[in-house]
Amino acid sequence: MPDRPKVHLAVDAVVFGYQPEIGISVLLIKRKFPPYQGGWALPGGFVNVDESLEEAVTRELEEETGIKIAYLEQLYTFGEPNRDPRQRVVSVAYFVLVRQDIYTLHAQTDAEDAKWFDINDLPNLAFDHKLIIETAIQRVRNKIIYEPIGFELLNESFTFAELQKLYETLLQRNIDRGNFQKKIKSLNILEELKEMRKPSGSGRPARLYKFIEEKYFGLKDRGDMFEVWVGKER
Amino acid sequence: MPDRPKVHLAVDAVVFGYQPEIGISVLLIKRKFPPYQGGWALPGGFVNVDESLEEAVTRELEEETGIKIAYLEQLYTFGEPNRDPRQRVVSVAYFVLVRQDIYTLHAQTDAEDAKWFDINDLPNLAFDHKLIIETAIQRVRNKIIYEPIGFELLNESFTFAELQKLYETLLQRNIDRGNFQKKIKSLNILEELKEMRKPSGSGRPARLYKFIEEKYFGLKDRGDMFEVWVGKER
Repeated sequence: MPDRPKVHLAVDAVVFGYQPEIGISVLLIKRKFPPYQGGWALPGGFVNVDESLEEAVTRELEEETGIKIAYLEQLYTFGEPNRDPRQRVVSVAYFVLVRQDIYTLHAQTDAEDAKWFDINDLPNLAFDHKLIIETAIQRVRNKIIYEPIGFELLNESFTFAELQKLYETLLQRNIDRGNFQKKIKSLNILEELKEMRKPSGSGRPARLYKFIEEKYFGLKDRGDMFEVWVGKER
Repeated sequence: MPDRPKVHLAVDAVVFGYQPEIGISVLLIKRKFPPYQGGWALPGGFVNVDESLEEAVTRELEEETGIKIAYLEQLYTFGEPNRDPRQRVVSVAYFVLVRQDIYTLHAQTDAEDAKWFDINDLPNLAFDHKLIIETAIQRVRNKIIYEPIGFELLNESFTFAELQKLYETLLQRNIDRGNFQKKIKSLNILEELKEMRKPSGSGRPARLYKFIEEKYFGLKDRGDMFEVWVGKER
């Protein structure tokens, strides 16, 4: 196919982290080389000819930030002809949710530095990376409406108040406590633990819960989310 | 960036059509050239260096099938190193929902023929196009759980029974009539028309409805789908 045009192919990763006191953050790297040298950008880079897109993004994340992730999800492919000032570069973007506190960042290769930024307080960004982050935020907000994602952002055991706070942070709105508990419980994907969390101040201890992944994936397969939405067939 | 590897970039389109008597179909083309010459495949082709991904897929669809579409949605990017037997080709796939009966197909350029196939009765397919179609079906099934898509597949005015039949076809399951009506009505995106549809046999005439796009997009923006799922905040 010598007459067919070729393009450079890149992958970029939007890594979201969560800390209850701060909110949602995104992981950025400081660029070592032009274009946008010294500017902040998403971790990512070019795909080698013999690796899959997932392999490329996993490798780049580890090289540039030290983060090793087991699960990521394809977000969107950005292919406007002029999105890179050099030549045509098409980027396949991925997103991932992690517990921010368990990672130690260390930048290598193309990155001079790696740092978490509050999504409400982002620096100027290279290329179309602002658009990519906005697309990822929108995707996560849409997704938690119909899928109980976000458990990756919490500790293994959590209270209902912590789960509700995470959803309120992601959706940027208040949620009715009673309805939320009822709906989440009706999905039957949480295990009630024997332990309680002691309050830091006064107040009653709160029940701890654990997310049961197998039940959740069973739910997805059987299309039961639809039943939650539209009601059980009789 | 002379040292960076380049790849061929393609776009493919999964066009779904609906006819109540038949179900959901997908539009395929018969390949004129190798590889897979004479085999069935998704309409699509290579991206020109100066056009966006959406421009490329719109152009290819028109060239290969005669179909002109106004709206399409990016599905997923398929980039396994060996998905094309020639060289590395990464394909950005799109999907679109259309009313099947309003289009006249006419194949040109790379396509020898263009034809609708029942999604439950597909021929052997070139490349990884079976995987692409399966991904698109899964996406549509997931999407209608939380978003009232599918109105593009119906006539402008329709009965509740017709809407329910479409949802049942897409989801491959029976839906409880009462719950479905209640939920859809609570979204407040349908206009009740004065006209009734006369039954073809005996029975009572049925109320006709129209989908109001503006109300639907307002709903999406305000995140009200979440309220439907999790209940209104007080």
